[in-house]
Amino acid sequence: MMTHFTDWDDTIVALATPPGIGALGIVRLSGSNAITIVNQLFPSKNLQQQSSHTLHIGFLKNNEQLIDEVVVSLYKAPSSYTGENIVEISCHGSPFILQQVIDACIEKGARLAKPGEFTQRAFLAGKLDLTQAEAVADLIASNTTAAHKAALYNIRGGFSQILKNLREQLIQFSALIELELDFSQEDVAFADRAGLRNLVLDIKKQTETLMHSFKLGNVIKNGVSVAIIGKPNAGKSTLLNALLNEERAIVSDIPGTTRDTIEEVLNIEGILFRLVDTAGIRQHATDVIEAAGIKKSLQKMQEANLVLYLFDVAETGPDDLQNMVQELKSKAGAYLLVGNKIDALNEQALQNRYGVSENILFISARDGLHLDTLKSRMLNTILQENMQTENVVVTNARHYQALVEVHLALQDVLTGLENNLSGDLLALDIRRCLQFLGEITGEVTNDDQLDYIFSKFCIGK
Amino acid sequence: MMTHFTDWDDTIVALATPPGIGALGIVRLSGSNAITIVNQLFPSKNLQQQSSHTLHIGFLKNNEQLIDEVVVSLYKAPSSYTGENIVEISCHGSPFILQQVIDACIEKGARLAKPGEFTQRAFLAGKLDLTQAEAVADLIASNTTAAHKAALYNIRGGFSQILKNLREQLIQFSALIELELDFSQEDVAFADRAGLRNLVLDIKKQTETLMHSFKLGNVIKNGVSVAIIGKPNAGKSTLLNALLNEERAIVSDIPGTTRDTIEEVLNIEGILFRLVDTAGIRQHATDVIEAAGIKKSLQKMQEANLVLYLFDVAETGPDDLQNMVQELKSKAGAYLLVGNKIDALNEQALQNRYGVSENILFISARDGLHLDTLKSRMLNTILQENMQTENVVVTNARHYQALVEVHLALQDVLTGLENNLSGDLLALDIRRCLQFLGEITGEVTNDDQLDYIFSKFCIGK
Repeated sequence: MMTHFTDWDDTIVALATPPGIGALGIVRLSGSNAITIVNQLFPSKNLQQQSSHTLHIGFLKNNEQLIDEVVVSLYKAPSSYTGENIVEISCHGSPFILQQVIDACIEKGARLAKPGEFTQRAFLAGKLDLTQAEAVADLIASNTTAAHKAALYNIRGGFSQILKNLREQLIQFSALIELELDFSQEDVAFADRAGLRNLVLDIKKQTETLMHSFKLGNVIKNGVSVAIIGKPNAGKSTLLNALLNEERAIVSDIPGTTRDTIEEVLNIEGILFRLVDTAGIRQHATDVIEAAGIKKSLQKMQEANLVLYLFDVAETGPDDLQNMVQELKSKAGAYLLVGNKIDALNEQALQNRYGVSENILFISARDGLHLDTLKSRMLNTILQENMQTENVVVTNARHYQALVEVHLALQDVLTGLENNLSGDLLALDIRRCLQFLGEITGEVTNDDQLDYIFSKFCIGK
Repeated sequence: MMTHFTDWDDTIVALATPPGIGALGIVRLSGSNAITIVNQLFPSKNLQQQSSHTLHIGFLKNNEQLIDEVVVSLYKAPSSYTGENIVEISCHGSPFILQQVIDACIEKGARLAKPGEFTQRAFLAGKLDLTQAEAVADLIASNTTAAHKAALYNIRGGFSQILKNLREQLIQFSALIELELDFSQEDVAFADRAGLRNLVLDIKKQTETLMHSFKLGNVIKNGVSVAIIGKPNAGKSTLLNALLNEERAIVSDIPGTTRDTIEEVLNIEGILFRLVDTAGIRQHATDVIEAAGIKKSLQKMQEANLVLYLFDVAETGPDDLQNMVQELKSKAGAYLLVGNKIDALNEQALQNRYGVSENILFISARDGLHLDTLKSRMLNTILQENMQTENVVVTNARHYQALVEVHLALQDVLTGLENNLSGDLLALDIRRCLQFLGEITGEVTNDDQLDYIFSKFCIGK
């Protein structure tokens, strides 16, 4: 578990702020020598004599070479992110200066940090468990309210607490099994087994809830892929622009946010809807959906989480639509039928003509009619498919995989109970459950797994 | 001068770190309400009761909505960069979170800062003069040792001190003129005028030294444009790659540094040599320099600060070279003749063949022979052209323009002295000198000029 803590005796350094030019850039060090190292570069004050959580302004020099006027922040062990001494050097935001500062720190004995190494140290020092550490990376990558909220929940240990409860219940079960073992000569087993079974069923149900939440978690973390399909001139391109134009107005105005990416993404109440193959819609308005081409197009759309079938109400009869619905049902997952080019007056007539269906709605892409309804239907379609709980949401595929293993082991325990397996055999399966739960929080780890997890972090975190 | 200080009564907020994803991102506020505003978002501590220069960890919330776990740095007026209360909020480096933090600060009463507004406030509060403020922007943009050194020198007030000395000398001159006015009835003028003239000559010489340094300053700040020209197969592409390959090894390894740009730039002892039209060299190895095409090519190269004429020693006779030298002398500025494809043994023979000239040297681009010599000759050619002083270097075109005006006014003073102009007329020219010197340091300013200067800063600085 924390066996390789002794490997972490050296002091690491990295750029903590994004690369590029800005007003400020920060170089961060962590390790027992962090203060000693910076002290050699910061002659105006003896940093070792300063209190933790203080700021110091002065000139940073390497030997006699002036590098910059900086602000040094001190965090003394153990009151820091990593539990070690941490020094942050806030410089003028020039990549040239920041590189010089990093080089100077390395010259004085630090080494360049690996990706995620600061957080890895925080984990190894017991400042965070593994789900919290992973939530740090999720938080940095979060770009919607929902992803942000889920990551913050996890970083504060919400998910860890639930897993801890599960673990305690399993240990309680273990204790009951051992009790049974103790009294095994006295034939008390059967009396306890009904209670044991209920306990396992309860734990299994909680695990299933968590597993089920991953479907939503995945949507929160990775967004929903949406395909807009329809005949030429159904108005696909107009709809796309109408949806995205509204979006553009609320897009983050932090400079440098990549418009190229955001242009294809719609944020509906904190869930990202990624509009797939929009370039195709824009460039080839002629990608015909008709008898011959329909299968090929639908195949392409099968990868989408949600298909919007857009049709021109003036061109499409109820029978045409019915045929399309058959195709969608057989080939697509969630879908919505979107009648376009209505005017406000004939909406009721259209409902009557096509028949009322929960999957159908009518808009005018050109006039911006009912686009909000479309968006909320898109959201609800996905939430109905996936949502079930207001509570914790599993967003991490690694956690989901471990929960699947826990669930399998619990099933084995249940089967064992039904087959009157002896307590020591049941205990093996319980141990498997605990093992996989422990892997989620990092109580049970191996170096390869940790290296893999932290390698996905950015440098400096 | 500092008359619009009352305009700056509100509290400003901006992202201080480069845009993009990183471990950390910092939102900075300055203004009398900076602490009050952040206090509303940071419920765990009463920040107003905390000391200046301290760090505070806690959760940032807008109303009941959790935004992030952050570190708040406090700098209380007047001990801050701007002289006002400054709060820096260090967040997880997600653009989404940073935008939320900025939005929350605005909701609580801050307004988004304009480019350079933090530094502008520092200037208006008298924390920096204008040359120091401009040096902040130069420092952030510096990407070579020389530019970095010049900016640091200016930021520490080196240039300001020199201007202050000039100013004091002019004021001394003014005092002498006034003395003359006082005694004008007594006809003591002529005795003083020789001394006055010497003083003005001395001030004028100092001004010329500063003006002259701008040529180097410009090279330091903007680099030297270099054109490599020569016949096909002279080895231009090989030379380019040989020069740049060495460079690549020492290129900054901060991620995100744009390789595309750096590839075309050679850093020789802190001066950037920008290799112009290198794409042309790479793609069109056939851009023939011969009798017909030579003028067109040279015209293109006239924009370069330095021309390298590369020739194949096996293909080029002394007469050919002599003709080329005539062309270079008439069309180009600084140039070097570079004989390529030598082997180590025949160097002396080549010197004899072509005649010894300070502009000629011999290399093998393929074998990497004498490339260091080439580079130091490139550097020296530029420094001989431009360098004259080891001391202060004027790098800012605005400062140079003002110095030109000072110089003109001083010349007018001298002419006035020679023509026995009366003291009150001389005083007018002296006032012009003081006016232009004051514009450099910002003692004399107007709002338009200030707005223009600070608008070139990045936001958050």
